Amino acid sequence: MNYYRPPLSDIRFLLETFDYDGVVGKIPAYSDFDLETCMGLLEAYAQFCVSELLPLNEKGDQQGVKYDPETHDVKVPDGFIEAYKAYCMNGFASLPHPAEFGGMGAPLVLSTLAQEIISACNKSFSMCPGLTAGLIEALHAHASKEINDKYLAKLVSGEWAGTMCLTEPQCGTDLGLLTTKAEAFGDHWKLTGTKTWITFGEHGMTDNIIHFVLARLPDAPSGIKGISTFIVPKILDDGSRNPIFCGGTDHKMGIHASPTCVMNLEDCEGWLVGEPHKGMRSMFTMMNAARLQVGSEGVSLGEAAYQNALEFAKDRRQSRSLNPELRDENHAADNILVHPDVRRMLLNVKSTTEGVRALIAWIGINYDVMHNSEDAEAKEKASDLVALLTPIIKSYGSEQGFANISEAMQAMGGAGYTADWPVEQYMRDERIAMIYEGTNHIQALDLVGRKLPMKGGQLMRVFAGEVTSLIRECSGDEALAPYVAALKTESKRLNETTMTMGAAAMHDNEIIGAVANNYLNQFALVTLAYAWLRQLKAVQSRPEDDTLRRAKMQTGRFFFELVLPEAEMYAKKVAVGKGPMTEIDVDLL
Amino acid sequence: MNYYRPPLSDIRFLLETFDYDGVVGKIPAYSDFDLETCMGLLEAYAQFCVSELLPLNEKGDQQGVKYDPETHDVKVPDGFIEAYKAYCMNGFASLPHPAEFGGMGAPLVLSTLAQEIISACNKSFSMCPGLTAGLIEALHAHASKEINDKYLAKLVSGEWAGTMCLTEPQCGTDLGLLTTKAEAFGDHWKLTGTKTWITFGEHGMTDNIIHFVLARLPDAPSGIKGISTFIVPKILDDGSRNPIFCGGTDHKMGIHASPTCVMNLEDCEGWLVGEPHKGMRSMFTMMNAARLQVGSEGVSLGEAAYQNALEFAKDRRQSRSLNPELRDENHAADNILVHPDVRRMLLNVKSTTEGVRALIAWIGINYDVMHNSEDAEAKEKASDLVALLTPIIKSYGSEQGFANISEAMQAMGGAGYTADWPVEQYMRDERIAMIYEGTNHIQALDLVGRKLPMKGGQLMRVFAGEVTSLIRECSGDEALAPYVAALKTESKRLNETTMTMGAAAMHDNEIIGAVANNYLNQFALVTLAYAWLRQLKAVQSRPEDDTLRRAKMQTGRFFFELVLPEAEMYAKKVAVGKGPMTEIDVDLL
Repeated sequence: MNYYRPPLSDIRFLLETFDYDGVVGKIPAYSDFDLETCMGLLEAYAQFCVSELLPLNEKGDQQGVKYDPETHDVKVPDGFIEAYKAYCMNGFASLPHPAEFGGMGAPLVLSTLAQEIISACNKSFSMCPGLTAGLIEALHAHASKEINDKYLAKLVSGEWAGTMCLTEPQCGTDLGLLTTKAEAFGDHWKLTGTKTWITFGEHGMTDNIIHFVLARLPDAPSGIKGISTFIVPKILDDGSRNPIFCGGTDHKMGIHASPTCVMNLEDCEGWLVGEPHKGMRSMFTMMNAARLQVGSEGVSLGEAAYQNALEFAKDRRQSRSLNPELRDENHAADNILVHPDVRRMLLNVKSTTEGVRALIAWIGINYDVMHNSEDAEAKEKASDLVALLTPIIKSYGSEQGFANISEAMQAMGGAGYTADWPVEQYMRDERIAMIYEGTNHIQALDLVGRKLPMKGGQLMRVFAGEVTSLIRECSGDEALAPYVAALKTESKRLNETTMTMGAAAMHDNEIIGAVANNYLNQFALVTLAYAWLRQLKAVQSRPEDDTLRRAKMQTGRFFFELVLPEAEMYAKKVAVGKGPMTEIDVDLL
Repeated sequence: MNYYRPPLSDIRFLLETFDYDGVVGKIPAYSDFDLETCMGLLEAYAQFCVSELLPLNEKGDQQGVKYDPETHDVKVPDGFIEAYKAYCMNGFASLPHPAEFGGMGAPLVLSTLAQEIISACNKSFSMCPGLTAGLIEALHAHASKEINDKYLAKLVSGEWAGTMCLTEPQCGTDLGLLTTKAEAFGDHWKLTGTKTWITFGEHGMTDNIIHFVLARLPDAPSGIKGISTFIVPKILDDGSRNPIFCGGTDHKMGIHASPTCVMNLEDCEGWLVGEPHKGMRSMFTMMNAARLQVGSEGVSLGEAAYQNALEFAKDRRQSRSLNPELRDENHAADNILVHPDVRRMLLNVKSTTEGVRALIAWIGINYDVMHNSEDAEAKEKASDLVALLTPIIKSYGSEQGFANISEAMQAMGGAGYTADWPVEQYMRDERIAMIYEGTNHIQALDLVGRKLPMKGGQLMRVFAGEVTSLIRECSGDEALAPYVAALKTESKRLNETTMTMGAAAMHDNEIIGAVANNYLNQFALVTLAYAWLRQLKAVQSRPEDDTLRRAKMQTGRFFFELVLPEAEMYAKKVAVGKGPMTEIDVDLL
């Protein structure tokens, strides 16, 4: 059973709330993409995902991928190749990519919201076009015209797929440790090394696979300042096989239909992308978008789990309501939706899912402004918000997304634990999101160690300014008063935490490592409160009996009363500092 | 890879801390079981589990169980039958059971602590003897001499296995809805119905399976007051097959090697256990012990995950310490144990795992006092503590256990997500613990709706008395002062929450349903604080450089400073009441 319906009406509401037409719609590069056009594209996209990809999700999980050690080939599950071709035929692979290379040139916020839908229908499948999109973005930003002319059109159409070959057995979080070597070979390079955790490193879905490989030139400084990026095509121009071979696939808890490969490079031909030793730059280009996508996976599978739990609940009768008025005397038991605890679980999932989705819509819009607005001031502000919020969305989105799937399962009881429902697969598929594209601790360090001090604290001030304006705009609206007050309290508390932490970290950097995760979660809850208040403000203009208004009011209320109180707890944990972690004897662990 | 080592030294420490020899050792029924004897038994048990059951764990997960629709047989994974026979041959199946039926008659606290070890080595396997033990306990307490003489010896030896056939498709949480019928048949009964979620309902491990079945007599009142219990052997005295057949096995997220069966009963012969319509009594006999065991599963797999994460961490170098003094210049990166966030994750798991283990040891000891002490006053006090703490241990133990496995995985990064390590299996195996043996919400309702009001609030007073005595005993010890203060604050807060909630619930019962889960978690943290303070007090008598003393002090400190603050957050959520859940339109979910 699977009850997933793409949340198109919530997406439309969010685009309206964050004034898509007034912001992205006004950017000349996006003049063909007004809200209605975007919604039309999303509807077509959603229809395709539900009809073509959703039916392959459970089968793909069960079948998994098959590695052949003799040929080094990887077989994806049945139906994936056909679905991928149909996906590309429909033009979906080209959605956000530049028109000059055959792309549709749609706003990034659109493909980010589309990502939620494809991921809910088939997270494993979505990773192939997802990685390719990252590669396209990196090449477009950093590669030579020659390289782009040669590769981009085929990548944009989806005829070829891309990968990201970053990590190695000895280096995951710490890319500075990487040892893959590049040696001069005529006008290009030969690369040798071993890459691990390579998503869709090998598969039979496209004629060629273009690997984006991090490696060191012979004269490279050590650490991350000596990393260069290359493209290494599986098939060379003359049709011969470049010796980059899959050495095996990982057996994982989830995303079974997404091959996670060890890739062995033995004197592979590669072409430098960007300047020597400046590879981290290209990598971060694709990483930021990818991190937004990962946060969106939590929304995606949290939403899908929620919908399934809700459908289960609608059909399930068990025990009597503690409120005599809600008892249905025609049945021996009441529908479980009468039970406050079932509602608590569902509202917990719904309020955090819709909160993070709102953040993603907001930051997605800012991403488009940052890239393509012609207003320099708007660009800088957008860029500040994107930089600040991206690690929060990635970390909180993945952590809460996973927790939400577990909560949805809890509402279903034993049924949710079986493969009769998709929720257990969602849980297995989602868990990796807290780890990949930079573990959640890396996100927290990025937030506290890089983003807060950046430009003398400007990013935080820009966000605080948004909060202040919103509070001002909402003042006087009685229906919003308790939520305005709560946002005020928590954003004040966040400022205090930030100052105290910042002051302590000036003397002692190690504190950052100790408190960053709790701080990120405190911050995340404040950003969600902001996103919720924006939504609640937006629905005030609707008639009182409007269902969306009523739904948002009750879900938002739950968030403010029963989720936001967690912020204070995180603040208290931050205030503890580093002692319990650093004043220990590690041998006694 | 698998690094599990049974935590025998912590178990010994806990038995000493809770004065096993002075309490259980003084009970005549347990005169053969002093602490040394118990530890000897546990060591032998642990050795068996590690050498015979642990090697079957991963294979069992991969192979799963096979149902044959033609024969209705279920095939357990390779090696399970042999391991089960060896387990029984060693006498382990008979550990806690009455000597008059061939059991060892060991204290329950011993088998509860043993449960942690078997479950860590092979949770799926452990469920077969676990269910049988529950049946033995129920029969011993409620069945006629005739039935017991016939079945108990073979169940105690493990020659036959037992099941619990409670739930049906339409009734899980709400057993009052059950419809399986019993009709008179000579001096016994014939039963017809369908049972679901039956653990080890069918398997080839024993010659006979004795099912404990809940059903209704023809004149039964509706609801749970009309439930009777029966035993239904798979094979009848004359060797013929009783028509109770497995109709299929569930495909689950985890515990793949434990068959979860649909059992179809068609005019099966059954014998009544206990009085007609009083079946819930026998059911609860076995449920209480089972709930303690389920809480222990969280400790078990949390501990195993912790050990694996720690071993991984010891070998992993990644990034530089933020503390220059900790940098190892002989390597390009530092061991990840230098990073405060890795320590935070490990200490979070360690402090809650050891906290719940301490509670289990304490309540396990009280369980033995309750059953076998000759001191009536001690019996009653023990019984109060068991009744109060059992739902807390089951619910918090399973919830935190699951969270702990996820936290341990996070410390390992991508490696933890692969099947190269056992942690992903632990996570899948553990998740069901929050659901079975009464969902965690049922535990919370049991705590708030039954245990708090019981005997006019006496249970809570007994617990509060324990806290007060401990605080008094610790006063004046400077090393413990901050922890004494924290326990005082949080136990005061818990009393306030309890009073306010109780007062509100007098007017409105529905509040209980709304706040029970948050209340249980608040209470759980206070019980953990109690259990930690007892441990910290106990180590004060050791030399200052004693490693156990130092380890407990640093782990306990982490608990008090970085886990206990969650209690206040739960209190705040309880204080919100029911509004966000009840003042909603459920159609807008």
